[in-house]
Parts: sequence; C-alpha cells; structure tokens
Amino acid sequence: MDHSVTFTGENINATVTVPTNTLLADAALQAGIDIGQPCGGQGRCGRCAVQVTEGEVRRRSTLRLSPSDVEAGYALACQTVVESDAHIYVPPQEKIERRLTTDRVVAEVTVPADYDYDSVQTVKRLSLQLAPPSMDDQTDDWARLQTAFRLQHGMERVRCSVGLLRKMSDVLRAGDWQTTAIVETNRLSDNPTSRLIDLLPGRGDDYAPIWGVAIDIGTTTVSLWLVDLVTGKVRAQAAEYNGQIARGEDVISRIIYASKNGGGDEMRQRVLDTINNLLETACKRVKLDEGRVTPDQIVKATIAGNSTMTHLLLGIPAASIRLSPFVTAVNHPPLVTGREIGLNVHPEAVVDCLPGVASYVGADITAGALSSGLDDAEDVTLFIDIGTNGETVLGNRDWMVTCACSAGPAFEGAGVMNGMRATQGAIEEIWINTDTLEPTWRVIGGGKPKGICGSGLISLLSEAFITGVVDKGGNVKLEAPSPRVRKGAHGGEYVVAWGQETESGEDIVLTRVDIDNLLRAKAAIYAGFTVLADQVGVPLEGVSKLLVGGSFGKYINVEKAVQIGLLPDLEWSRFEFLGNTSVKGAYLALLEPRARERITAIAKRMTYIELSADNSFYEAFTSALFLPHTDLHKFPSVVEALRK
Amino acid sequence: MDHSVTFTGENINATVTVPTNTLLADAALQAGIDIGQPCGGQGRCGRCAVQVTEGEVRRRSTLRLSPSDVEAGYALACQTVVESDAHIYVPPQEKIERRLTTDRVVAEVTVPADYDYDSVQTVKRLSLQLAPPSMDDQTDDWARLQTAFRLQHGMERVRCSVGLLRKMSDVLRAGDWQTTAIVETNRLSDNPTSRLIDLLPGRGDDYAPIWGVAIDIGTTTVSLWLVDLVTGKVRAQAAEYNGQIARGEDVISRIIYASKNGGGDEMRQRVLDTINNLLETACKRVKLDEGRVTPDQIVKATIAGNSTMTHLLLGIPAASIRLSPFVTAVNHPPLVTGREIGLNVHPEAVVDCLPGVASYVGADITAGALSSGLDDAEDVTLFIDIGTNGETVLGNRDWMVTCACSAGPAFEGAGVMNGMRATQGAIEEIWINTDTLEPTWRVIGGGKPKGICGSGLISLLSEAFITGVVDKGGNVKLEAPSPRVRKGAHGGEYVVAWGQETESGEDIVLTRVDIDNLLRAKAAIYAGFTVLADQVGVPLEGVSKLLVGGSFGKYINVEKAVQIGLLPDLEWSRFEFLGNTSVKGAYLALLEPRARERITAIAKRMTYIELSADNSFYEAFTSALFLPHTDLHKFPSVVEALRK
Repeated sequence: MDHSVTFTGENINATVTVPTNTLLADAALQAGIDIGQPCGGQGRCGRCAVQVTEGEVRRRSTLRLSPSDVEAGYALACQTVVESDAHIYVPPQEKIERRLTTDRVVAEVTVPADYDYDSVQTVKRLSLQLAPPSMDDQTDDWARLQTAFRLQHGMERVRCSVGLLRKMSDVLRAGDWQTTAIVETNRLSDNPTSRLIDLLPGRGDDYAPIWGVAIDIGTTTVSLWLVDLVTGKVRAQAAEYNGQIARGEDVISRIIYASKNGGGDEMRQRVLDTINNLLETACKRVKLDEGRVTPDQIVKATIAGNSTMTHLLLGIPAASIRLSPFVTAVNHPPLVTGREIGLNVHPEAVVDCLPGVASYVGADITAGALSSGLDDAEDVTLFIDIGTNGETVLGNRDWMVTCACSAGPAFEGAGVMNGMRATQGAIEEIWINTDTLEPTWRVIGGGKPKGICGSGLISLLSEAFITGVVDKGGNVKLEAPSPRVRKGAHGGEYVVAWGQETESGEDIVLTRVDIDNLLRAKAAIYAGFTVLADQVGVPLEGVSKLLVGGSFGKYINVEKAVQIGLLPDLEWSRFEFLGNTSVKGAYLALLEPRARERITAIAKRMTYIELSADNSFYEAFTSALFLPHTDLHKFPSVVEALRK
Repeated sequence: MDHSVTFTGENINATVTVPTNTLLADAALQAGIDIGQPCGGQGRCGRCAVQVTEGEVRRRSTLRLSPSDVEAGYALACQTVVESDAHIYVPPQEKIERRLTTDRVVAEVTVPADYDYDSVQTVKRLSLQLAPPSMDDQTDDWARLQTAFRLQHGMERVRCSVGLLRKMSDVLRAGDWQTTAIVETNRLSDNPTSRLIDLLPGRGDDYAPIWGVAIDIGTTTVSLWLVDLVTGKVRAQAAEYNGQIARGEDVISRIIYASKNGGGDEMRQRVLDTINNLLETACKRVKLDEGRVTPDQIVKATIAGNSTMTHLLLGIPAASIRLSPFVTAVNHPPLVTGREIGLNVHPEAVVDCLPGVASYVGADITAGALSSGLDDAEDVTLFIDIGTNGETVLGNRDWMVTCACSAGPAFEGAGVMNGMRATQGAIEEIWINTDTLEPTWRVIGGGKPKGICGSGLISLLSEAFITGVVDKGGNVKLEAPSPRVRKGAHGGEYVVAWGQETESGEDIVLTRVDIDNLLRAKAAIYAGFTVLADQVGVPLEGVSKLLVGGSFGKYINVEKAVQIGLLPDLEWSRFEFLGNTSVKGAYLALLEPRARERITAIAKRMTYIELSADNSFYEAFTSALFLPHTDLHKFPSVVEALRK
C-alpha cells in the first residue's frame, strides 16, 4: 500500500508517494530533503526529529524524545515508518540542534519581562542644567552641581570622589553648564545616598546604552556578559579559561600557591588579566551605530565566583578556606570600585562581588540558586552545578541545603589531553557506530576539529562505553576490533580523529588518564548530590526537578550524562539545562535590586553541609567511579541501552 | 635719700641700698642681677620689664607695656627709677621674652579644657573578643567581627575596605581572636555608620596614643602638629617651606604652572613631598617610652589650606580660581583616605580637608576664625592672617565678612635676599642704635645668624625707618653716617651683620628690593583690612579686638608692626597675637566634632567680598606703600616716636 507523504518547513514543500513502512528519513531523501543524521541513522542522536502533523506513523524508538515531544507529534525520521498518508513538518535543522546541544559560544538570554530601567536600576544617567557662575554667584562647582541634583532630581545626598572632582571643573565648562551624570544610588540604605560615578559634558542621549557587566569567575572558566542597563539586553558574551589554571587546577592548589610569598598577588593579577582581556573581547563584539564601546565605559559590575575565586580576585588571603574549620575571610564582600580592585572598567564603577554561603559554596551557587529559580520553587528541586567544584543545592522556597565536592576541570575540557573550551573547533558531540566503532562528530562552527569540549567528552565517554570500546571500569578494551583502539603512552586509548582529519594534524585521542579524570569528576558530582539528598532524607526519586548548570554549554546530552553516571537515571522531563547559571544570576542582580537582595537572602538561608565531616561521601564517590556505577540498579535505562 | 630695694625671682633674692632716682636696671646690676637690655637701655625693646610689688617708682616710659601691665606693677627696668623702698619681682627672662616675641619653632598649645576622648573623638580604639570559629560555627571572619562590634560595642553598621579584609584573617588569628580595632564614626550622618581604619592583633593599651595630625598648608610655609588623640596633647611640631615655591611664589603663579601639561601632578607631588617629610620629622621628634612613632600610625588628619593649596593637594584643577568669576571646583571637599591622596599616613586614615569660603578665602581662614574665637565673639573683631595671601575677617558671632589680597611671601622670610624661616639661626628681632646706627639682634637658638625671619624683617624695617636709615619711601639713605649703609647691586642697602659675624661668612643685608617686597606685603595687608572695614561701614577704631595670625611666629612686635604701617595704630591692648591660627583650627577640628562643625558653619556664614571688584583696594594699597603710610594722621604713635 502506498502513502502520500507531504513535507513542509522553511523553504520546504514537497510530496512523495512511498510504500507503507517506509522510513520517514528515506521518504524525505526521495523528496530531495536532507535531514541530517549525525549518528548514521542509529536512532541515537535525535537530530533527525520531525513533527508528524497528520497521518499515522510507527515509532521504532523515541530515544531523545520526551513524552510531551511524542504527544506533540515529534518522531525520529530514522526510526519512524509511515502507515498512512501523512503531513510531516521538518523543523529548521538548527532548531532541532538547539533543543539537544547548543551554540555554546553565545547563550540566548531573555531580558526579565518586568525589567524597567527607570524604576529599578541603581545606576542612572541624569541630565542636569546648571546656572553658570558669575560675580554675583561664586558658588563652587561641586556645590552648584549638588544644588542641581537637589532641585532637578530630588537627590539630597550625592557623594563624589576626589577622582571626579579632578575632572568636574573641565566637564561642566566643556558642556557650557549642561552636564550628564552617571549616578549610583545605594539600594541598601534606609537613608538613600547616591554616588557620582561619572560626569560628562552636555546632554546625553537618554536611550544610549549604559554599560554593565555580569561576570562569573569559575575555577576553570571565566564568563562575562556585557549588558546595556537601559534595555537590559545582553549585547555581547565572552568566556576564556581562568589564567590561574597555570598555577593549579582546583581551588585547593590555588590556595596553596596563593599562600606562598607573592603568590596571592600573582593569582590576583592572573584572574584580573583574564577578566580584563574578556572585557576587551566583549566590547569588540558589540556592534554600535556610532563609535565603539570600551571597557572604561562599564559603570557597574556584578561578580559571581566561588569563595576562593572571590578571595583571590580581591587579594584577600584564602588560606583559612582549606584549613579546618574551613572558614572564609568574608562571605559578603563590601561594594568596591573598579579602581580599588584593578578591574579595567570605569575607575569609579560600582563592583559588587555577590555573597556566598561558606568556604566551598560561593556566590556562583547563590547566583545560580536565584537564576535557576530554586529559591522560589514550590516543589523539592535539585540544582547541580557541573563545574570544577561540584556544588549541589537541594531545596525549595522554604529550605535549602548545599554541599560541594572537588570534581576537577575535566568537564570544562581542561586536564584532558585533547580537551578544550566549548568554542570554535571543539567536538561537542560524538557518536560511535556500534558495528564499525567509527566515530561521527559535530564540531562547533564546523570545519576540522581542534579538540573536544566538555559535552563532547561526556558524549565520547558514553558512546565508548555503550559501544564497548571502554569497559565499566574505564579501561580501553585493546581487543576491540578497530584500528582506533590502541596502546598509547599512558595505557589504552581511542583515536577520535586521525591527524589528517584534525586542525593540528595530530590525532585527537581519549586516553586512559583522560577517562580517569572524567570518572573522578562525574563520581564526585554524583556522590555529592546523592549524599546531600540522603542526609536530608529526600530520595532522588522525590526530587521533582533537576536543574543542571555549568559553564560548558546550555545543553548537555542527558542520555549520555546518565549513561556515564553523571546524572541520576530519572525521566528526562525532570531535567532542565540552564547553562551558566552563575553568570545569569549575576546578570539578574546587575539589573534588579530585588534580585540582588534575593541573592543575599539565599546566602543567609542556605544551610551548608560539610561532606568531609563523615565517610559517606567517600564511599559514595568510590562506588561511582565506574560506568555508570557499581550499583546498576540505580541506572535501569543504561542497563537497557547496553542490552540493545 | 637712700632706698632699700629687694629683688626676688627664680633663684634671685638680693637687697641693695641705692639713692633715690636710681634706675631699677642699675640697682639690679649693683645686686649682681643681669637683666637683659637688648636695645641698649633705650626703652624700646621691652625686654627688661620687671614687676614692682611694693614701693613707689617713676616710669619715664611705658613703651611696650599695656595699661593693665602697668596696673599690675610692670615697669621697664631701663626706664624706671625708685622713689621709695621697693620690692621688685624679676620674672624669668624667657617669660618676658615670650610675652613679646616667641620661640617660633614650637608654639605652646593647651589642650581644650573640655576635650574628652571618650565622648567626642570620632576615631576610637576598641577591644573585641571574638568566639573562635569551629566546625559548628563556620561564620566568616568579617561577619564574626561585625557581630562582636554589635554585641560588645553596640555598633550596628561598620564598613570595611578591601585593604583591611586583606589583613583581617591573619590579624584575628595572630591575636587568638582577641583584637583591637581603630574605628572612625561618621560624625555627620543621621544614621551613624562606622568605618574600620585598622585592626591589630591582641588587646591594645587603652592609654597608648592614637596618632592624629593637624596640617596647615600655607602658600609659603607648611606646618603640622602631631597629636595624641587620647590625651589631645600636641606631641611634636614641624614646619618647612612648601616645596611648590620653586614653581611660583604666590597662588596665581602656582595655578598657572599647575594648569600646564603635567604641572598639576608636579605641584601635587611637591606639596605631598613636603608634608610627607614633615610627618617623618615630627614623628622623630616624639619621645616615647617604648618603640617609636611612624607616619603610618597616623590614623586621622585634618588639613587647612587656602583654596588653591587644597585643590593642588587633591590634584583638582585650580584654573577657575584665577579666572573671572573666580570660583573654586570645591569649597567643601569630601572626606578621603590617606591612600586616596598619597599622604604617607595610614592608608585608611581619615583625611579631612577643611572647608573654605571662596577662591581666595580658604580653610586656613575658616580654621583661623574658629581658633581665634572670632565666630563666637560678642564685639566686632578683626582677624588678620599675615601670610602670603593677606586674608582678613571682620565680624562677630552674628556676622562675618572676609576678603583676601596677595601679599607675597616676604613676611615668611621668602623672596627676601637674606630671608629665612623662623627657625634655628634666624634673626628674629633687631634694634638699631639711634646714634651709631649699629644693630643688636636676637638669634633663634643663639649663635651666629644665618638670616632674618619674618618678625626680624618687620623689626628691622621699623628700626631702619625710626632711626633714619630708611626714608618713608623705603629708600636707604646713603648719606646716613654709618659704614653699614652702602650701595649694593640693587640700590642702597643696610648691612645687618658683617660676614665675620654670620654663620655663612657672608654679610647679611637688607636691600632696596627686599624693602620693596616688604612694603608691598604690608601695604596689601593694610589695604585689605581697611577697605573691608570701610565697605561694611565699621571704622577701625570701632574694632574692639584685633587678632593677628601668621605662621611666622606666635608674637610679632606690635610697636614695630605699627611703625611700618602693617597694623593699624591702635592701643596695643586691643591686639592679640595668635601664631598659626590655621593649624590651631585644624587641631581643634581634629579633636572635637563640634569644632569641626563650627568650621563648616563658618564657611557657610562668611560673606566673601571681592576686592578686585572696585578701585578702592588699589587706591588704599598705593597709599600704604609708604612708611608708615601717606596719611600720617592714621599713625599718631609713629609720628610721636619719630619726634623723639
């Protein structure tokens, strides 16, 4: 029996006649439509998903699709056959891709719906018209400006630094006594005082951007968003490895280095260099009708980082963080200016280092709890930040507990032979053919691969395990029937890409050492949230939502993250991938004082649980050092996948 | 008829019998008592004053003695004869001297009677005992310290800089959680906040000094007093020429230089170098039982300077000060820290640049109005600050008017060939013998003279005029019968000391150029206060008190200052010599917030009168360019002295 199948979509409108039980992928091919199948039609990558809008089809597999996807008619073209006439919508390829992995370079950010610069922003641009001085009115410039603030904007108490007094006289005269002030009003005071950040000659454009920046200082990766505070829009993003990596991969080694003579200054300078370079990069990425943005135009910054990162940035000794009883010097740092801490923003810019909870749960997590909405969740929610320090928060609007464990930088592509950041040239997803053990990959930005980023490593480890390249202990099976499996300098390794296929001309490989690093990272994170849930008596099954954050990209492949035992084996619909929750929280705090105050409230409300206090973490960690875990009952879907 | 005359005094007890009409000086000599007569018994210097406690005497002259002095029995030993048995008290020589001139190096300062560190000082030393952190209490260091401030001192809001956070962790542990804080509490806020200035390990000595400094930045001379804020005592003084002199003698030339490219930075650095050197000097002068004071222990500074000096110190462009309509950038500078302005005190020290009134009436005058008590005077009072800028204030507790004029640095010993500061080796007073035209002088600290300081120059000009060495136009009379009068490179000159008598071996002379500088200086000051009094309709005779300030010494010789026409010819009892009123005002503001607030009130209350606005100042100035003045009716006592 033949069926008429019509394909529609962007620039797509074609009808073909095919026999019943024809694969949708084949029907599309017949219609001249190329539906990408990166996994080679194995039904594993989910990239060929289409939407059946009319007609009957039979799905052989719905892997990668959620129940609601299926209800909405989605089907994998490589795994679905037609059983009647049908209408098939082919979504734009990139839309499908974004559902599954992402453009890891630039995250899409939506400005909070209720953001209103005029009513909530603490940094404002104000126009002032001053009466010129005369022999009858010899009032000094600063008093004259203060009078204008009072009469024209109702501001009684405006403070001013010596730095601004140094330029005030020239600015007022250059603008013929018309001036534009950038002013910060202290959000926390009962008796609001304001502070002059900058003064410019003439009347400014009310709609021109006022520049702010949200910064996430990760142990491994530093990310920042350059924001127009007037519209609230993120105008550019940039990320780079933290320059401190050269002096230690994890916070403990950084603290030890910083505690040496001169080490603290060096660490401070290294992270400052990283941020200052990123500021330059982000500014260059902004397209303006007129002129260009420079970092010194940035007048407000919010910084989220773990406690060690914040201490090292501010030059505050972090030694006590790693020594019992593990206390920080400061969890709620005071507001500072760009000048005070050496950030190349406007010297008078307000720099707000967001508050943390404890030595190992810092502002990245309080900001993440805000941006993930955990602090306002009705149901019990688990927030997992997959970074160098695997922090976890469990709770809802009524209570929050948190813990941290040292995962290492593997999921950020560091400490792995061919690892790299999720940027141009990184393999971000890999599929290995079950029969040939040949890999297929997707490279960010296309072209020859340079290395493998975090999500690519998760994908690779999972595929290698499922296809039998690697055993549950993480050993590369040298007897596997493929030239890609070989013995390298550090034990067995799998060749992901041969030299002739890569940018550098060198093979891209996954080594035994890399696998160990990945195993330790995933085991630490898994042990962290399971022990935390256990300690407060909430079984993982009782968690209604699992929010996953991480600077390695907006989406990771849940299936593969479950297959390696990084995430628990729960319905995929409970997972939500939030990307870099820390920079997003910093962004929200940059815009809205209420968001900022929520972060302070979160920092005060969270109960920190010290995992090193008993042995349960260590036991959970060692049990999780396998693929996916020593206890396979915890991973039924993986057992099933292995069976296939 | 013979009389028995008994002399008493410190280590003095002698009786002699002398005929009636014997000079007290001769009687004393007969009794073996040396009463100094620097003017050679001419009754001109007043140094031989003694007190007649019993008996009758006849005073041939009471020059230099006030009516109340005479009422108290004082008499000049060289001008008074006995007429009955008498008891004569011989005051210690230095006490007499101090009444007339002074030790110009160190002024005696009395701590305000009501000064109470505990209740009024804004900078305090507080002891705190913190609970050590533990696994059960992982509060961060700064929150722990804030809790101690709240519970142990009732302080709710204490701010802390990044600089202090950098040392906090080590300090708290070094003192085993016992710590001593130096804290400043903002005196002006309705809602008092405090700021941590320093944190030291262990429990501090409650009675140990807390160091503050009062600084007067004069155009020519910078003076500072190092103060123990606990006792209020001035523990050391130091003064030096302002290093900016090399780039201009008056404020106008300084402003021009500072307005050139890089000039502002150079001027700022020059005055900072001067102050920082003085801080070192003053610290070295303090004798302590243990250890020594260093400038970085100074935690509070008040600075009085004219508006130009304050602008240059803070690096604020001063150009508008000299250009019509003559406005400053700032009259009330904000509080800053030592670090912010480059002062080598404690980096977190509160530095308070006192407020001024206008471009040419700065904080030196508001501080002077405070320390002179003018702002609280019942009767109309004239306050004359004899400095490089001749500022005058006329008024009382109800009203104050002020003006300024450029006098130049002559009275501070600068811009005069053999001028020098009032320090070791300076001739501070001179008498010229009417007959021989030979001088006698007094050198500060004794020994050979190095030069002549301000009071010495006033004294010298006056003596030269009265003895006919110089005519009323300031010309050296070359026909005068003395080898000391001669023609020099720049016209006639008078040799004060021959080379063999001086430290350097060179003659010390008064030249025509020097005289011109002195004439211009005294004429400007005289014109200033007379025009000011005229403009508000108060005749000088109606001024009940004339307060004279100046950094050149605590006392100048009134008689001589009147004789050259610097001060008006009024009864000496109306004059009061206050020394450096600016540094004294800064000192009072350093101690007491009420004094500090009075200075702000003074700055707001004073009405500034611009002398350049009409011609009357210029006319008064040219009329005063003579000795003592073109209008001799204004100087009856001088006419009388010339007649003698």
